[in-house]
Amino acid sequence: MHQKSYSSRGMRLENDINDSNKYYRELDRALIYKKPTPVQVVHVDYPKRQRAKITEAYYKTPSTTDYNGVYRGKYIDFEAKETKNKTSFPLFMIHPHQIKHLKKVVFHGGIGFFIIRFNYHNETYLVDSKLLIDKIENIDKSSIPYSWFQSHGILIQEGLCPRLAYLKAVDELYFKEDK
Amino acid sequence: MHQKSYSSRGMRLENDINDSNKYYRELDRALIYKKPTPVQVVHVDYPKRQRAKITEAYYKTPSTTDYNGVYRGKYIDFEAKETKNKTSFPLFMIHPHQIKHLKKVVFHGGIGFFIIRFNYHNETYLVDSKLLIDKIENIDKSSIPYSWFQSHGILIQEGLCPRLAYLKAVDELYFKEDK
Repeated sequence: MHQKSYSSRGMRLENDINDSNKYYRELDRALIYKKPTPVQVVHVDYPKRQRAKITEAYYKTPSTTDYNGVYRGKYIDFEAKETKNKTSFPLFMIHPHQIKHLKKVVFHGGIGFFIIRFNYHNETYLVDSKLLIDKIENIDKSSIPYSWFQSHGILIQEGLCPRLAYLKAVDELYFKEDK
Repeated sequence: MHQKSYSSRGMRLENDINDSNKYYRELDRALIYKKPTPVQVVHVDYPKRQRAKITEAYYKTPSTTDYNGVYRGKYIDFEAKETKNKTSFPLFMIHPHQIKHLKKVVFHGGIGFFIIRFNYHNETYLVDSKLLIDKIENIDKSSIPYSWFQSHGILIQEGLCPRLAYLKAVDELYFKEDK
């Protein structure tokens, strides 16, 4: 049954986060966007009476993470990844430039984290960037066990509005003293 | 002579800001990037043994400003515009979605501003977003006089490294009490 449930869900973490960000923006809870995918444009046609048409372009490797913005006066920055793996999260999914970027976010006083979804378990975790990066840099294996996320991450509550209530996890992790 | 000097300079504010951001990142002064231009991809070819080639795509209107990041623990967000006009800055250059976005930045506790360059005068000003937006919303004309920027903006110091020392203006405007 699990198998069916995750295949019908598909790989849709990005859509869930975009929907949640839209919800948070409309309620003025936070101002967080996904950055556009960088594209290197090589050729553009300018047909008469029509808008410019890009006819040759290539995807570029982003130098940062996918999401950033502002929440409760703080700079927020995160990367989101989902895996179909049942027992572990493969480390090749996190790129060196993302690690480097999130270290700098924290250095400059921002809040950095990862959102990691295990599609098989229908579970999505928020993990502090320093915590996960320390783990990545001190592990000999090419993956981190699912159980590590259960004990070190915060399980994000899922629902309809927002799809992914990840700011609740942010409150719990970074704003606890304010409550 | 002015004519010659500004035509040889060209319209290169974006490059100057990108260079300055790179300089600030390398010195760990700030972590600020230009967001990629959003592109709607319609068709992609996947040739064998070659990287994916986008063969049909269109530019999309961004819903936010061009630049954001983190500096001294604060969320930073700004839009940059340059004009060849000698006596005034035309308001059509600032789009409604940029005004709406910068209002939200300030609402959420971020720092929002505009960088406005007058190519004719070889001068670039940093203006607080609330100040300029108030002016835009309370003016009957379609432009704001150059003299308004001289009295309400901070003249950004230009040089080699960084090309545009705009963080000095940010310090002066938003971090004065910390000095």
